[in-house]
Amino acid sequence: MQAYVFQNINELPFKTEINIPEIQDNEEIVEIKASALNHRDLWITKGQYPNLRFGTVLGSDGCVTLGGNTFIINPGLNWGTTEKYQSDRFKILGMPDFGTFAEYLHIDRTYLYTKPTHLSNEEAAALPLAGVTAYRALVVKTQPEKGEKVLISGVGGGVALFAMQFALALGCEVYVTSGSEHKIEKAKELGAKAGYLYQNPDWTKQLISDIGGVDVVIDGACGPTFNNLVKICNPGARISFYGGTQGKIDGLNPQLIFWRQISVFGSTMGSDLDFVNMLSLVEKYRIKPVIDCVLPFDHVHDGFRKMKEGTQFGKIVFSH
Amino acid sequence: MQAYVFQNINELPFKTEINIPEIQDNEEIVEIKASALNHRDLWITKGQYPNLRFGTVLGSDGCVTLGGNTFIINPGLNWGTTEKYQSDRFKILGMPDFGTFAEYLHIDRTYLYTKPTHLSNEEAAALPLAGVTAYRALVVKTQPEKGEKVLISGVGGGVALFAMQFALALGCEVYVTSGSEHKIEKAKELGAKAGYLYQNPDWTKQLISDIGGVDVVIDGACGPTFNNLVKICNPGARISFYGGTQGKIDGLNPQLIFWRQISVFGSTMGSDLDFVNMLSLVEKYRIKPVIDCVLPFDHVHDGFRKMKEGTQFGKIVFSH
Repeated sequence: MQAYVFQNINELPFKTEINIPEIQDNEEIVEIKASALNHRDLWITKGQYPNLRFGTVLGSDGCVTLGGNTFIINPGLNWGTTEKYQSDRFKILGMPDFGTFAEYLHIDRTYLYTKPTHLSNEEAAALPLAGVTAYRALVVKTQPEKGEKVLISGVGGGVALFAMQFALALGCEVYVTSGSEHKIEKAKELGAKAGYLYQNPDWTKQLISDIGGVDVVIDGACGPTFNNLVKICNPGARISFYGGTQGKIDGLNPQLIFWRQISVFGSTMGSDLDFVNMLSLVEKYRIKPVIDCVLPFDHVHDGFRKMKEGTQFGKIVFSH
Repeated sequence: MQAYVFQNINELPFKTEINIPEIQDNEEIVEIKASALNHRDLWITKGQYPNLRFGTVLGSDGCVTLGGNTFIINPGLNWGTTEKYQSDRFKILGMPDFGTFAEYLHIDRTYLYTKPTHLSNEEAAALPLAGVTAYRALVVKTQPEKGEKVLISGVGGGVALFAMQFALALGCEVYVTSGSEHKIEKAKELGAKAGYLYQNPDWTKQLISDIGGVDVVIDGACGPTFNNLVKICNPGARISFYGGTQGKIDGLNPQLIFWRQISVFGSTMGSDLDFVNMLSLVEKYRIKPVIDCVLPFDHVHDGFRKMKEGTQFGKIVFSH
């Protein structure tokens, strides 16, 4: 079968012919109909991910068929027995296990979930990893209430957009930040009340002047400007972050946090239960993933290049 | 009546004769039998506290009598209607309202609670502000479970010691840090399993080697070494801080936090409900506040000097 394989650091995955893997107990061979790209795939090709194994088929997200039925895959394998954190055996599909940038995949049938009926194969493939990450960071950790003000930083990325859609579905007022006016406009079309350009040094003052402050913040960047996210928090606010693309947090003012009873949650991926509950939310509110583009499976490299540029708004999907 | 009044920044409170205050509806004049010192009082004399008002009688903690009965005072006034955070009207007894370093006090009777029977007047006076702060930071925010490992940083301060006693009462294993071997030994006498000198650059490695990691951290310092407290966290750990005496947090690694699903809570003081629940815990387990020394009311200045030196282990109490 054709597959995109991680061969070398700083090279795009190599398209090659490999054998369809053999299966073990509880496993199935499924045919991949659509897959989607995550930042994780890009970081792996840059060598910026732990426990890399050369020769691995990349790709964490997939919509697949088996025996005439269509499924989406929960890519979080071996979460473990407590909801609070993942076990030592936790791993994400697509490294070190073979992933979805291939024609076929072997997967434990535990991780197959019936595709939501309101989604196309491509939309379904866009959902799993970013969807469950957003669900846990937003819904499980910050427990947003109807009418609360939620700020989503860096809108345009997959997790940020799902967090926005989930918050809107739950009746929250959503605000966004971005480095691009164009992305802010697109977020407003999807339901955001307002957006702020984070390169504007006065954006926090502007937000406070506009709406007073926010009750929930969802961030994937951290870095030296994390303190800006604290400044805009109302008393009792919750901040949840699922990444740290801007690096270490500096200059964080503890008084701002303890005096206002603020909680800060680190969150990554999600449990099997989070995945099930995320699917329920998506089905209940008929949420459709925001898709930047659908590329043919032959054009996986174009997807990687587009993600490197950072211009996408929504998921980059491959139709197999 | 005799009272210690805040007159000038960088001066100890001035002992002087003032009138017994007039009372309003719901207020009572109570006779103060014992009071206790908090870092807050010291910060006020240094000008390091917001909304200072000259001429205010200092002191947040008190054990008082009224009509033959003995009470302790909840010093958190006007908490407000939600448990999640204090209202804009929240204030702490002893600035800007007149406090307990006096012979008499006027106080809304709402804030008077029957003194726990197992405590002396001096022990009861040691409890309120530090006790409720420790209760909220530890019990309400981190929800420690029996058998969990709890690290208390900077043991010796009032809040840290109450947090240690509450964690022990709840069946946790307690570990401490301090800058003093002597304080670590005293903490071990009170039930701590082990202690670590935080000036030892390898203390985090030593702790991880000894016990693997901790599930809960209670801190009042923050500052540039806060990342050390993250390093020793087990997956799913909760960190709660009630102060920031070491200033801003720098070099905080977001990966350590999100990958291990760590939660960080800012916490200050406590609600009326927190105060009631703290008293219940103290009565149920017959917890006795750790008292460094009991000084006569004439020697309030000696108490301030002792706190400045930072050598105390437990509360500095004044017998009136």
